[in-house]
Amino acid sequence: MIRVALDAMGGDHAPRVEIEGLRLALRDLPATFRVQLVGKPDVIEAELGLYPDIDRARVDIVPASDVVGMGDKPLAAIRRKPNSSLVVGLTLQAKGESDAFISAGNTGAILAGSTVLLGLHNGVERASVATAFPTALGPVLVLDGGANVDCSPRELVCFARLGSVYMRDVMGVASPAVGLLNVGEEDEKGGAVVREAFGALKETNGIRFVGNIEGRDMLAGHAKLGHIDVAVCDGFVGNILLKFYESVGRMLQLLLGKGDPALFRHPDVVRAFEFLDYSQYGGAPLLGVKGISIICHGASPSNAIKHAIRVAVQSVDVQLDQHIQAEFAQGAA
Amino acid sequence: MIRVALDAMGGDHAPRVEIEGLRLALRDLPATFRVQLVGKPDVIEAELGLYPDIDRARVDIVPASDVVGMGDKPLAAIRRKPNSSLVVGLTLQAKGESDAFISAGNTGAILAGSTVLLGLHNGVERASVATAFPTALGPVLVLDGGANVDCSPRELVCFARLGSVYMRDVMGVASPAVGLLNVGEEDEKGGAVVREAFGALKETNGIRFVGNIEGRDMLAGHAKLGHIDVAVCDGFVGNILLKFYESVGRMLQLLLGKGDPALFRHPDVVRAFEFLDYSQYGGAPLLGVKGISIICHGASPSNAIKHAIRVAVQSVDVQLDQHIQAEFAQGAA
Repeated sequence: MIRVALDAMGGDHAPRVEIEGLRLALRDLPATFRVQLVGKPDVIEAELGLYPDIDRARVDIVPASDVVGMGDKPLAAIRRKPNSSLVVGLTLQAKGESDAFISAGNTGAILAGSTVLLGLHNGVERASVATAFPTALGPVLVLDGGANVDCSPRELVCFARLGSVYMRDVMGVASPAVGLLNVGEEDEKGGAVVREAFGALKETNGIRFVGNIEGRDMLAGHAKLGHIDVAVCDGFVGNILLKFYESVGRMLQLLLGKGDPALFRHPDVVRAFEFLDYSQYGGAPLLGVKGISIICHGASPSNAIKHAIRVAVQSVDVQLDQHIQAEFAQGAA
Repeated sequence: MIRVALDAMGGDHAPRVEIEGLRLALRDLPATFRVQLVGKPDVIEAELGLYPDIDRARVDIVPASDVVGMGDKPLAAIRRKPNSSLVVGLTLQAKGESDAFISAGNTGAILAGSTVLLGLHNGVERASVATAFPTALGPVLVLDGGANVDCSPRELVCFARLGSVYMRDVMGVASPAVGLLNVGEEDEKGGAVVREAFGALKETNGIRFVGNIEGRDMLAGHAKLGHIDVAVCDGFVGNILLKFYESVGRMLQLLLGKGDPALFRHPDVVRAFEFLDYSQYGGAPLLGVKGISIICHGASPSNAIKHAIRVAVQSVDVQLDQHIQAEFAQGAA
């Protein structure tokens, strides 16, 4: 049984959506896992009581009396709140008592906590939030999604390798195409960091680097290269792009909403909007840490929590962590 | 009569779309301008001959025997091709024989040529491509759109001021809301350059700085601040975002195209796609240079050229150049 620790106190609507997400996961996913709900036992019990259909034999409650708030400073929160659900949940995994951690809490604190408590793989300088952009041709994994606003060329190369392993192992893409987000396709485009990263990526073994890609190549594919599986950029660009994309659906709703309301019931339109709803795609794995840590949007609905559990189980199942370790051991040799 | 110089040899489909665009502009816009077609006279004459309805009394042909290619190095092209349509067209304006310049040619060369031949306003260190993002709530002007991949805090402040004047004078927004694109709303978000720019923007008189904005605030408005008129970022972020946005329509077409073809004829869907078609929005003004210089996408259709002519005429009409000069004279005082 795979053991998934779920921060029950993390998100904007905790613990309601976390428990609802757990319920959906237990109901809909193959029964290869159990969930460790981390948080205040009385609060968790009260919420669990609302769903008599939850199979309690597959749920453990791990007590944690404190909560890291959305406004807490990440590193300080990790140090000063040892009894928070975030620290307790990650410590379970560090001690070998859990296989994966999921939280919709303070992103910076999950990043800091995962880095400090789980540690980084040899050769990884900073962990990266890998965000899947849904597109008509399949997901594009964008790294970094916002953990690291400034990145060195070495870090960008590291993101490319981490993203490549994830797309191969968890998403089942045989030979992921990796592109470097830039302002043009030509080799010499971009600032100093990006130009140096371009050169280093060309020399990197074990990834299929297709060169510079532009913003337009992400959603409908590159004219010559087709679908891009991994888009590498710093967290400043990645985060702005991710949030911009989230708002496309909202704007289209505004636009279409001025017209015929029946349009919203058209199955193709429903499907297109589902597509643009990031909440359907669960959590973003934090790649580079030892173990599995998955960050959910603070406003995640229960469906996103369910999908995050799916991603966590799958990551453990395919031995993502061991493969990342092997990839970096190879790179260092 | 306002005199607009149009590079007849610039774009991917020159001179066809340029002459078609000219024809649409003469037909559809108020007759307050004349157009100086710059390029090879025989090529221009042959193309003009296809449209007997063009009012030749409002068209001048300005001979230029050479063309700057899309692959030419910008500064070298400006120096080595004095008889190119680009250099000849800009020189007309520098000599006071024209009021505005439009080209769908090599963006880097238009930027370099405009900077060298027209010069920069006092207080402006680098010119910026101002790109209008169409949204459901009105255009958002993004500066920089790709001219400057790395920017200093001072340059970002300069973009904010230039964009503010443009939105006020040309787009008619009384008090444009200016946001700094960042990974979060809090004051201390982002890297060193963005944090310093944030502080400087708060101290800048004459603009309505609303603070940090996120990618999600651009298309459907900010939850509290509403519509953002000017989004400030470096050209790396701006260019990736711009091209990403261009591809949204293409992806939606792919998505909807898998379903019911009748959907594409629904008037609301037609309108939404029109909306996402950047070619409807003409050229991007190059702000900061003395005079008016407008950059069109290399793949611009004739409609984009027409709109660029409209923007050029309007910019001259409202005395944009004088207002920018006054704004920066004030800032220096």
